[in-house]
Parts: sequence; structure tokens; C-alpha cells
Amino acid sequence: MPIEQLDLPTSAEVFSAAQTIAGQVHTTPLIRSTQLDTLTGANLHFKCEHLQKVGAFKARGACNAMAQLPAGTHLVATHSSGNHGAALAWAAAQAGIECRVVMPETAPMAKRVAVASYGAEIILCGPSLADRESALAKLVAETGAHVVPPFDDPRIIAGQGTVALEIMHQCRDAGFTPDIVIAPVGGGGLLAGIGLAMKALDPGATVLGAEPAGADDAQRSLRSGQLVTSQQPDTIADGLRTTLGQRNFAVIRETVRDIVTVSEAGIVEAMELLWTRTKQLVEPSAAVGLAAVLEHGARFRNKQVAIVLTGGNMDLDRACGLFNSREKTA
Amino acid sequence: MPIEQLDLPTSAEVFSAAQTIAGQVHTTPLIRSTQLDTLTGANLHFKCEHLQKVGAFKARGACNAMAQLPAGTHLVATHSSGNHGAALAWAAAQAGIECRVVMPETAPMAKRVAVASYGAEIILCGPSLADRESALAKLVAETGAHVVPPFDDPRIIAGQGTVALEIMHQCRDAGFTPDIVIAPVGGGGLLAGIGLAMKALDPGATVLGAEPAGADDAQRSLRSGQLVTSQQPDTIADGLRTTLGQRNFAVIRETVRDIVTVSEAGIVEAMELLWTRTKQLVEPSAAVGLAAVLEHGARFRNKQVAIVLTGGNMDLDRACGLFNSREKTA
Repeated sequence: MPIEQLDLPTSAEVFSAAQTIAGQVHTTPLIRSTQLDTLTGANLHFKCEHLQKVGAFKARGACNAMAQLPAGTHLVATHSSGNHGAALAWAAAQAGIECRVVMPETAPMAKRVAVASYGAEIILCGPSLADRESALAKLVAETGAHVVPPFDDPRIIAGQGTVALEIMHQCRDAGFTPDIVIAPVGGGGLLAGIGLAMKALDPGATVLGAEPAGADDAQRSLRSGQLVTSQQPDTIADGLRTTLGQRNFAVIRETVRDIVTVSEAGIVEAMELLWTRTKQLVEPSAAVGLAAVLEHGARFRNKQVAIVLTGGNMDLDRACGLFNSREKTA
Repeated sequence: MPIEQLDLPTSAEVFSAAQTIAGQVHTTPLIRSTQLDTLTGANLHFKCEHLQKVGAFKARGACNAMAQLPAGTHLVATHSSGNHGAALAWAAAQAGIECRVVMPETAPMAKRVAVASYGAEIILCGPSLADRESALAKLVAETGAHVVPPFDDPRIIAGQGTVALEIMHQCRDAGFTPDIVIAPVGGGGLLAGIGLAMKALDPGATVLGAEPAGADDAQRSLRSGQLVTSQQPDTIADGLRTTLGQRNFAVIRETVRDIVTVSEAGIVEAMELLWTRTKQLVEPSAAVGLAAVLEHGARFRNKQVAIVLTGGNMDLDRACGLFNSREKTA
């Protein structure tokens, strides 16, 4: 669809979303680590969205979308590798509305258990985005469910952007403004929302996206100016295997300076550093921001850098397996 | 030594210690988990000492002891399974004083690395308390080092007790007072300090100690009225393998209601719950308080319970190994 025909969200909608979801989601802490500052030569501020409701920033967008459902909606549905599904299931349960979630069979068991624990029905499908979309289309045809997409939706983008409003408040309370705000990018809901918010609050700050080199569609899209709509993702960051949405791409082009990529080893290293130095249990996708600082050090040196830790949901044995070879050679 | 000849710390020394160490240690958060409250039927408040300097409450006592060294001290020494050693090494480095730490060969590598990272010299010894004490005695004979013991010391007990002052402030700010304060007990520095503080601040609150059934000297000491001075500890909680100190026993008898024991499976379950539900990476010893709530549920139901999460230092591969069998059968 041509950009001019898309219903793109505005900065004002991010501010409005913050009012809508206040009291339903947590204001999460912004934490520091002397050891990680020393290691990177930067001033790092970690926004703890793994401590958000349902353990991920996705609660923000889901809450905002649920507040704007069409009248008479009795059933909502979505597809998700996990955190958006859990967030929608949680938000729907709070609103007393039924929810179904299409999930890839490759999603971590912990995320499937979370979705089920909020009372939603799970429909399993193949691992690709096309698999998910066709399963969701079938569900909608059969039930008339209202779809709340995981990222390509103005309500979702605006909701996720509220994290940047909190970051700015917290930075100002601490007496500084961030030079750089960096967030992982999968479908681009979070990054687009942050871009919109920062454009309104502090257009001088640099907003960066970070993604695995094995799922680098956002970087290729941004650099070519053409939305890359398919890829064969190869990354442990299960939350970042999707490709950018149309609306997300349109917003990110206007508000985000650059997308940087990181290696798989870098993600594991960053995750281990976050676990052992900050004692925060974050999932692989959430470690991509710190991995970018580790692998693109010069860009961040001596800067005030806000990094979004996006979630903390994972299967412990799978996560622990990532560290095994590293520990044994230490 | 008869109790009347021991230099026992007082509640006033805990308050004084809080003044001494203010600004050097963190005021750590007191966090909640809706899921864990639901699971246990209690109102749990977790005091996050794994987010303390050096990743453990031990920074409090070490800081307080360093501020009261005999004039002319040029070298301090101690024995420790890890966290006290790291804390003393850190506090000594801040004060510009040399430090040596006797450590059992069985101490987690992460704890050895931490001690070394603060610039202290490590002397390895056998795993028993007797091994540690003889290695330390030899070191003192050779160097004239001033010993800062890990727990059986009035400065250390008073320093650790400051955690209870913070808990009480934080509970009152949140509009309630704790019915129960529970902390793990190894040598008893933390528990004795909490007992002293609570006796002064809120003598109606119940102070409980928790220890592994495989290292239950504190329970046996308290129940028999005779200090048990040796045991063959068999527990994954490496911070709790020591036996109670004399001063600690004397204070705990007067200020602590009871010591409860927990199983090894209970420790692993509590640790996994803390990791996955609160996203906080705590070490096995730190999970003993929640394990007690899980295994002695009736005692805690509907109560306001403050639980000290004592530390977050461990070898990841060893910790992950604890979960493996559980994950595979899930």
C-alpha cells in the first residue's frame, strides 16, 4: 500500500497512549551498572521492560489497542512469537474479552505457557511470517475475530512509544538528557514508537535500531529505501525474527538515524553480561541493544545512552545452553 | 568463651553503622511479585541485596568494619566462601589498604574472580571451616594482618543489620509493617544484625532464620541451647555452609524466634521461581528465604513477609545445571 494511504500514528498519539495505559502498566526502572560503563566507556542507562507487566514492553501496545477496540468486539486475535501474544491475552483478560493467539511451533515453551496462563487459546503454526499470517486469516474468516497485529498497527506503535516518554522523564529527573536511545527492532513497533516520541520530545537525540545480522531486514530496508518483506531469519533472538511492518518502516524512515547489526556471539556475550553484572534475567532479544554498544563501541563512547531491555521471557534451559561453551572455556 | 566475656554488638551499633556506611553502599529496592503472592498466599517483599555493591549484603558489614580498623592497619585479611571476601576486598580497595582472602577451593569461580578483580590476593585452602581458620592463622602469624572475620565480629553484625533498617523504612513508606522478616543463616552475621535492629524498631515482628536441612547447625544450636560448632555441610547453598559464630549465636538466641530448614529441591524451586517470575538472578543461598515460605506455607499465609535476597554471585553453568533435570521433565 502506498505510504500516503497508511494510517500512520503521530507523536500526539504516543502522548495520548501514555494517558490511556497509565495505572495499567508499570513505570519500569532505569538502571545503571558501573562495571558495564567501565567496560564500554559509555554511560549506559537500561530501561527495564523485562520488569513490565507480562515481562515485556508489549503490554504497553496491547493495553493501548484494547482501549480502542471497535464497538461490539467480543473476540480478539493475533499472531506472535510470544510476548505480544501474552500481552494481548493479559490485556484481553483484564477487559473480559476472549482472545486467540497464533504462535509458531518454534516459540519458547515459556512464552506459550504465559499465553495460556492468561486464558487465551493458542493455535500453533509453522515458523515463517507467511505461516502465521495464513493461520490468522483462517481464524478471522471462521470467527470474525478483531485482529490486534503485533506491530503494524498505529495503536500498537503509539503504545510502545510510551517507553520513550518514561525514559526522558527519568533521564531528566537524573539531571541529563540521552544522546542516544537504542532499541531492538523486529517488526518495528517499539522502534517506530520511540522514534515518534523522541522526535517530539528531543529531536536532537539520536534514535538507533539494533538487530541480529541474521535478521537484518530493517537495516536493508532503511539503507535501500525499499521495504524488505521476506527473509530467512537465523538468530537466537526469537523476538526479532519478523520483518518490518509497512507503517513501522514509514515511521522509522522519518525518525530513526540508523539500524546497526550485531553477531550471534555478541548477543550471547551481552546477555551474559546483563545476567552477571546487572543480575537481570533478560531474554536474547533484549540483549541486542547492549550487543550493539559492545560491537560498535566508537559510536557510543562517552555518550549518555538509553538502552531498552525489551523482555525477560525464555526457556531457562535453552538460555543456559547458550552460555555452556563459554563457561567451559573460561 | 562465656557469653558474658564476648563483645556483643547492640542495636545502637546497628543505627551507628547505618550512618557510617551511608553513601558507600546502595539503598537496594524492595520488590514484589503478584505471581509469587498468588502462589504462596502471602504478601512477599523481596529485599534486593543481590543488587548491593559487590552483589551481596556483605558490602554493609565490610564497609562498617573498615571504618573502625585499629590505627596503623596496613593489611586486612579474612576467610570467606566468596561474598565476604569480595566485600572486604572492595572496601579495602576503597580505603587504599591491602587485602588477602583465604578461600576454599570449592568456592564458585565467579566469586574468586570477583575477589581478584578488587585487587586482593587469594590464598586457596580446603573446604572445611577448620581448613580456612588454620590458613588464616598462618597468614596472620606471617604478616601481622588485621583480621576482619566474615561473621563473628560486632562490626560485621552491626553492618549487616542495617538492611533491616532499610526494610522497615521501605515498608512504612509503602504503608504497612512486616509481620515476619526472614533471612538465610550461615555464620549468622546477617540474621543477628536483623534481630538486633528489629528488636529496637519493632519488637512485635517475628524474625526467622532459614537454612538448608543439609547445614542445619543454626536450628540445632537454637533448639538445644548449645552452639553446634561443627557439621559436614551438604548443600548447594555455598554461602550457608559455615557454622554459627559465638557472638551470632548469643545475639540470635535473644532476638530470633525460630530457625526453619529447607530441602535442596526447595532451594532450586525457589531459585527458579525468583529467576523466572521476578527476573532477578539470585544465587542459591539467596533463594532459601522463599524456599522456607514454600515449604512452611501455613506459617506465612496472609502475612506481610520481608525476605532478604542475600546475593547474586554464582557460576552460571553451575546454576543452570541445577535447573536442567527440572526443565527436561516439564
